[in-house]
Amino acid sequence: MSSQPLRLGIAGLGTVGCGVIEIIQNNAALLKQRTGRDVEIICVSAKRKDQKRDVETDRYEWVDDARDMAARDDLDAIVELIGGSEGVAYDLVKSALSNGISVVTANKALLAHHGYELAVLAEENNATIAYEASVAGGVPVIKAMREGFAANNYERIYGILNGTCNYILSEMRLTGRGFDDVLKEAQEQGYAEADPSFDIDGIDAGHKLALLVSLAFGTKPDFESLEITGVGDINKTDIDFADELGYRIKLLAIARRENGKVMQILEPCLVPSHSPLGMIEDVYNAVFIHGDAVETPLLTGKGAGRGPTASSVVADIMDLARGYHMPVFGIPAEDLKAPDFMDNGLIESRYYLRLTTLDVPGVLADITRILKEQEISIEAILQRGRDPGQPVPIVITTHETTRQSVKDALSQIEALEHCIEKPHLIRIDETE
Amino acid sequence: MSSQPLRLGIAGLGTVGCGVIEIIQNNAALLKQRTGRDVEIICVSAKRKDQKRDVETDRYEWVDDARDMAARDDLDAIVELIGGSEGVAYDLVKSALSNGISVVTANKALLAHHGYELAVLAEENNATIAYEASVAGGVPVIKAMREGFAANNYERIYGILNGTCNYILSEMRLTGRGFDDVLKEAQEQGYAEADPSFDIDGIDAGHKLALLVSLAFGTKPDFESLEITGVGDINKTDIDFADELGYRIKLLAIARRENGKVMQILEPCLVPSHSPLGMIEDVYNAVFIHGDAVETPLLTGKGAGRGPTASSVVADIMDLARGYHMPVFGIPAEDLKAPDFMDNGLIESRYYLRLTTLDVPGVLADITRILKEQEISIEAILQRGRDPGQPVPIVITTHETTRQSVKDALSQIEALEHCIEKPHLIRIDETE
Repeated sequence: MSSQPLRLGIAGLGTVGCGVIEIIQNNAALLKQRTGRDVEIICVSAKRKDQKRDVETDRYEWVDDARDMAARDDLDAIVELIGGSEGVAYDLVKSALSNGISVVTANKALLAHHGYELAVLAEENNATIAYEASVAGGVPVIKAMREGFAANNYERIYGILNGTCNYILSEMRLTGRGFDDVLKEAQEQGYAEADPSFDIDGIDAGHKLALLVSLAFGTKPDFESLEITGVGDINKTDIDFADELGYRIKLLAIARRENGKVMQILEPCLVPSHSPLGMIEDVYNAVFIHGDAVETPLLTGKGAGRGPTASSVVADIMDLARGYHMPVFGIPAEDLKAPDFMDNGLIESRYYLRLTTLDVPGVLADITRILKEQEISIEAILQRGRDPGQPVPIVITTHETTRQSVKDALSQIEALEHCIEKPHLIRIDETE
Repeated sequence: MSSQPLRLGIAGLGTVGCGVIEIIQNNAALLKQRTGRDVEIICVSAKRKDQKRDVETDRYEWVDDARDMAARDDLDAIVELIGGSEGVAYDLVKSALSNGISVVTANKALLAHHGYELAVLAEENNATIAYEASVAGGVPVIKAMREGFAANNYERIYGILNGTCNYILSEMRLTGRGFDDVLKEAQEQGYAEADPSFDIDGIDAGHKLALLVSLAFGTKPDFESLEITGVGDINKTDIDFADELGYRIKLLAIARRENGKVMQILEPCLVPSHSPLGMIEDVYNAVFIHGDAVETPLLTGKGAGRGPTASSVVADIMDLARGYHMPVFGIPAEDLKAPDFMDNGLIESRYYLRLTTLDVPGVLADITRILKEQEISIEAILQRGRDPGQPVPIVITTHETTRQSVKDALSQIEALEHCIEKPHLIRIDETE
């Protein structure tokens, strides 16, 4: 193992980039003691050189175009904290790997979209990509899957992977406030991005799930095949009814082996209020990892923020300093298989349906007839208040049925004369 | 990195040893794919050759005296699953390291007592000791501390580290049964050892905490300096009163930096019922690790049992196969400092006191006078039922005070004429 300094270029000086520099500056002696090498920042790059930052960067060489870092021969690794699946981040990572320079990144979008191509490129050039910070912030989930639980055939992963969504859903329940109101506050507190759609629509958590699926099942990352439902349609009615029924609503990332295929889905679910996942609130993330030997280990922690994310980035840097050099998705890229995903219509589960109908006689009869025709057995029907002739929410929970049956039923219900809004469907997940 | 098989000798074929062999046999292809090398068992050893085991061991060379493994030149690592801080385990590990053979072990007692000596020996001979399975079973806590959170200056560790004690305390609360009754069941279910004293008296959790303290603060493991209180004195009265006050009793392992020293203690504590640690029930373990960058990550999982423990042993084996070679306590042994521990009398906390006095006039006046003299402010006094002239339990909770004050007060209370049992003290910990 080298005793020379590990030389870094840092591309992207936002919250996380500055956090990384802060740790490397403040904990320099510790990093050296724990890895046997100095960690040395050679150069930095960001969109704007003149922006005020809370860490001192003048001592490092400034690079105007981050892409130029990849051609340098004085760097051992490039820390890519620019973000985005295309553009500068993609160009930089690709050229760095081509030149045998390893990459540390928090960029889940990049890996979810181009992970296989980049993993192949890394291996061809004896480099690697470390991306602990890309999933669950400060919680070492990638390390757990590639190393800590590596003795296991993975059977399933269950997790809450987006802190912003979890914060919004928690706050709506705790404060009784509406979605938009809480989202605005999350943006003010810095949890949610200015453009929150990646979080709210589930794209961010989907990127993360795509990486975990690849790690768990030895498949090429395949974000495009993932069925994603965001939290934008969850309203106060859902939160209140769920609470009354003993559930909380969580944006759940799920993948498991089922009949030789991989079932994967990202969607809001009702989970029991007192289950381990039900109790994960606020901006916390949580991941259950099940294997054939370990039983229900759960990793939780803050899923975002400067400190936790920078902590994971620097941990990756330290692994590189130690000479640890993992295959990107845990096995050689050439062994990664094309995934064989299950048809999600076959998912058997209980469901929660919220309908908005006019309060007129016969509506319930029509709805229950349709459910019966689809062989869906009703567990409970809840209706709050009466307001003849006006819209009222009706909530129905079903016994176990297939996703396809319930979707077919909802299409028919939506076509009913007195059904005045698109019916809303949330799966009830009681696995964990 | 070598592409030759990693050659193992396995010493100890109990529950965990057989679990390790089972994983290596069943997941051989996976292990090779994930490490790039075959993992090959060369020889095995146990006390009795003829014992019936549920894995096939005939294909491996039998070694009568495990110590002989250390002198062989056909082994890359020895898996020590014999247990115990002295005797065969100690001899074997010491000779193996002296001969440059790395050791994988689940033996917390060995490392808590001889960790520093063995770490020095390992480094002198370019070998290492991997011991993930020694703390929190299948949960990769050692990896998290040496690698996952390695960018952090650790500030504090809080954990539940003994599954047997946690099971007993949980069951007492849930079923209303007594200590001995639940312990017996735990032994029947295989959670508790035939000699349960290591668990019950806190020795086992103490060994684990000694290792975590060393990892967190860069100090030589020092089990002897650890103040340990077991769970043997916890009775149904405590469980019930705690429940009534909104707490659960957990055997807490705690260490933190305080005024330049290290505070460490292992004792049952009252923790809020709805806190993350309060909700860790059954045989689960949980560890909070706080650093200067990460915020409150929590790792939980089953802390014992064949599958989880063997999973961690094999993960360590895989790290060796990959050529990962960590300093035993995270930094070079020569850098490990003698710990400077805080006087636990200075610990400031709220306390729960259970006294048993005769139900006679004036007793409470005596008790409250003593507390007042020690400047201990009472939060609540609870007494169940009245039985003139007979023993009754009295529970007192205090406001914040020092451990020394409360101990001094208890000595005086114990000397009171009508106090007929040694007063019982449990700290109230609301940190997590």
